[in-house]
Parts: sequence; C-alpha cells; structure tokens
Amino acid sequence: MTTPISDLLRLPAGPVDLSALDPRATHGFPGKDKSDQPKLMAELAPVLDDRQERLFAAGRADPESAPRVLMILQGMDTSGKGGVIRHAVGLMDPQGVRITGFKAPTEEERSHDFLWRIERALPSPGQVGIFDRSQYEDVLVVRVEQLVDEAEWRSRYDRINEFEARLAEQGTLIIKCFLNVSYAKQGERLMERLDNPDKYWKYNPGDLVARSRWADYQAAYADALANCNTEVAPWYVIPADRKWYRNWAAAQLLAEQLERLNLGWPPADFDVAEQKRLLAATM
Amino acid sequence: MTTPISDLLRLPAGPVDLSALDPRATHGFPGKDKSDQPKLMAELAPVLDDRQERLFAAGRADPESAPRVLMILQGMDTSGKGGVIRHAVGLMDPQGVRITGFKAPTEEERSHDFLWRIERALPSPGQVGIFDRSQYEDVLVVRVEQLVDEAEWRSRYDRINEFEARLAEQGTLIIKCFLNVSYAKQGERLMERLDNPDKYWKYNPGDLVARSRWADYQAAYADALANCNTEVAPWYVIPADRKWYRNWAAAQLLAEQLERLNLGWPPADFDVAEQKRLLAATM
Repeated sequence: MTTPISDLLRLPAGPVDLSALDPRATHGFPGKDKSDQPKLMAELAPVLDDRQERLFAAGRADPESAPRVLMILQGMDTSGKGGVIRHAVGLMDPQGVRITGFKAPTEEERSHDFLWRIERALPSPGQVGIFDRSQYEDVLVVRVEQLVDEAEWRSRYDRINEFEARLAEQGTLIIKCFLNVSYAKQGERLMERLDNPDKYWKYNPGDLVARSRWADYQAAYADALANCNTEVAPWYVIPADRKWYRNWAAAQLLAEQLERLNLGWPPADFDVAEQKRLLAATM
Repeated sequence: MTTPISDLLRLPAGPVDLSALDPRATHGFPGKDKSDQPKLMAELAPVLDDRQERLFAAGRADPESAPRVLMILQGMDTSGKGGVIRHAVGLMDPQGVRITGFKAPTEEERSHDFLWRIERALPSPGQVGIFDRSQYEDVLVVRVEQLVDEAEWRSRYDRINEFEARLAEQGTLIIKCFLNVSYAKQGERLMERLDNPDKYWKYNPGDLVARSRWADYQAAYADALANCNTEVAPWYVIPADRKWYRNWAAAQLLAEQLERLNLGWPPADFDVAEQKRLLAATM
C-alpha cells in the first residue's frame, strides 16, 4: 500500500512556514523520473474519467442533492494553474466540469460582498467545479495591494471558513490546492515567455510588480493557508517547480478525492424488463 | 491534397432527403478502418490544441472583438452528442471551451422568447462554445410534440436565420452538426443501456416515446436543415452509426474550422527588451 497523495500533500494544522516546503519535491511520484510521467498520466486518465462519470451520473439521477466537488487552484503567476487545468482537469469529460477564472472584480462584483461572485460560480450537484483563483484573492492581492483596510481583510478568514463549512455541509467536497513555485523558477518561466513570441500573450508587465512583492505575497499566503486550513476544506500544497510532477500530483489528488465519494451507478428508476420488451417491439 | 472534411460533410443547399444520407458512411477517413482511429485522434490532438490556444490567446489580447466559435450539436437520442463532447471537444483545453446543454426549458426560460436562453449561453471572444441541443429544439421537439402552433414554429426558421446571421456578422464562426444515426442503430444503443446496469442512468423511458415518432422527427429535421442552411451558418451532416468515425470527423471538422480563422499569436503590447532587462534584474 502506497501512502495516498492526499496525505502526503495535506498541509498540517498550525502555523505555516512556506520556506520549509520544497517546490522541487516529488512526493509520492510512483515513477523513476520525468520520463515515466506520460505513462502514469495515461493510466490515470481512465480512472479519473470513470470516477467523474459516476459523479455526473449521480447528478443526473438526483439533481437536487448529488455531491459536488470544488477544486480551488491558487498560486503565484507561472505556478501553473492553467497547466493543471489543461493537463489534469482536461482528463475528465468536459461536460461534467465547470471552470471559472477569477480576475480583478468588475464594477458590479465590487458592489457586492466578496463572496457574491464566488457563490454564483459554484458547481451544481454532479459537477466538478474548478476555480482558477478564488475567494482567497480577497486576502492575498487585496492585502498586499492594500485595497481594503486591515480589519476588513482580517475578518475575511472567518467568513471564508464559515462559507466553506456551509458548502461542505451542503454536500460539496472541497479540495484547495496551493501550487508552490519558487522565486527562481518563476523568474525562469517569465523569461521563457519573453524569449518566445508565441508566449508574449501570457506575459503582463504587472507580473513584475507582483514579483517585486514576493515576500509580502508569501506572508499573505502563509496566513491564508494557516487560517483557513479546516477539516472540511483542507489545503494541499503541490510542489510546482516541476511541471510534470505538478500535473500528475493534481490529477492523482483529484482521482483520490473523487474516490472518497464512493459512488456506484444510479439504479434504474423504471422497470428494466418492461422497457426491454417495449424496445424490442420497435426493432 | 485530400478534400477537406468540411466539404465532404457540408449539406448542399436545397431540399433535404435524410434517407439519402448514409449513417454508416466514413467520408474522408484517412485510415484503413477503425483500428487506425486512435492513432489519427492522437495526431489530431496537438493540432486542435494549438489552434484553439491561438483563439484563446486572441481573446486575451482583444477581449472585445476576438473571434468566437460556436459548435451546435443536434441529433436523435444516442446519436452521440455527449460522445463528441467527450472525445472530440475533450481534446481542447477546457479553459477555452464553454459547454451548454439545453434541456426542456425552465419556467423562467419559457417566459421569454425561445432565443433568450440561447443568447445567454453564447461564447465570449476567444472561446469555443459548444451547444448540446440548441435553438433547433424549438423547431424539432416543439413541432413534433405540438407544443406551439404551426404558424409559430414555422416563423422560427427565419428568426433563427436572422439570429445566426447577426452572430456571424459579429464575429462568431458557426459550425452546425447533425449527428445522423439510423433507427436500427438507435435501437441497439438503447438496448445496450438496458443490458448494462452501469448505463441505466443514461436511459429514460421517454426515449421510446421520441423513437415512436421517428418519422415525424426525421421530417422536422429535414425541414430545419433545409430552411436554416445558410452560407454563414451551414449544416454539416456527420454519419453517426460508427462512433469511431463520428468522433474523428467532429474533431477534424473543428480543427479545419479553427484553421479558417487563420490566427497568429498576439504581438507584445509592451517593450520586450525593457521587460527582459527589468526581469533579469530580479534574478
């Protein structure tokens, strides 16, 4: 029995020291090295697909109260939120997946509580929701850029915990992932974008502003992770300096978490023998 | 030069005789038979991925007026709308894809014009929108089940044409696919669902009601296809009795249509040399 990736990546309760978490780690990777990753991803694809289809089926059978899954992706620029969506989330049937990216809030969004736009993007029963950034931006960029005063952002940890507890209570399995990229690797990845005209569109001069506040962001992340690391909505820290490991770990984590739902296939809500007879008569 | 699948599947203008269209055809399939399909799909994956990423990049660079793509999937039960989404649409990065399934309208939807809910589900600039059923249900099931009177549904062909012309004018590339399954194959596929407890959830006794009105549906489809087959929003007929062909044809059609957009990569809207210098100073 190998240790579940969920256990290996699970952030322990208590204060968080990000500098103690190695962005180059490959916890639980069952292969020898990078060269084994494509084969492992290919093996994971049908597993993820099957488990997600069971969830989708549950949603069809019980559109009111089937379980929901919500995966939250947070991390600094270039940590690979998009890469995880493409390579790990992309292994599932897109019909059952709802992806929402949260950018700087619109004027309408700013006129509401910070959780308003989050609430509107939650997955329905049977769906896997993916958040590319999330409510955590409201205690990260908002704190570092001093967009609200300290009393306000400090109050948000509790409000986020209450919000997530309510979601969990209502049947949402929450998987929060911090993609842990190093300062050095971020520099390399940004330079790649500037070296490659096909990737200019991924670059934004604002990325350097955020990079210049690296220490402030690390402090904000450490507090967000420590203050909102609950039993019902735990944080997982995914080392993100190696893309191949990061993508595999995210896919494996999703597969394990979907398995926790322990879903069979919905039973027939009709008389199978009778329907067979009726159908046979039409053939 | 092989003939593009777009030309092979394009429904010619004029009256439509569905019985003349072979659901078992494999127009344009470049392999020998089914055994070549997985390799061909694997070859298509990076092509589709690249072209869709260019569209996504265009949407980032110009969120107001980048092109949009809308693929509409129509067909009888078991024709494989879900299979096409899973296997063809699933080859693209899910971040750039917006899938909407249209079921029987809700009370709110019924209180509006039939195009209201369609309008709300349109893809944004840079997105590929996928409709699993669409505005065409309002001249198909609605006609067969006599949910509105004949004058009303007859008037909808023109309104759909005007609507689609406006979308095209505003920069949406429209790809309408009729998945052409035979009556015999539908019977087989429904029986498979009844023979397999893992598939009960896909079966609905209402499927037999629609099947009993096969001829009416064929007539309704023939009229919808003939009346709404415009230059800017043409119909493609995908033979759907062979799943492997259907999925390949849909993926190939998508790849060809995305290629028509002829998109490069967005140029930098910043001074690349300066950003490199600034970034290098942080490393």
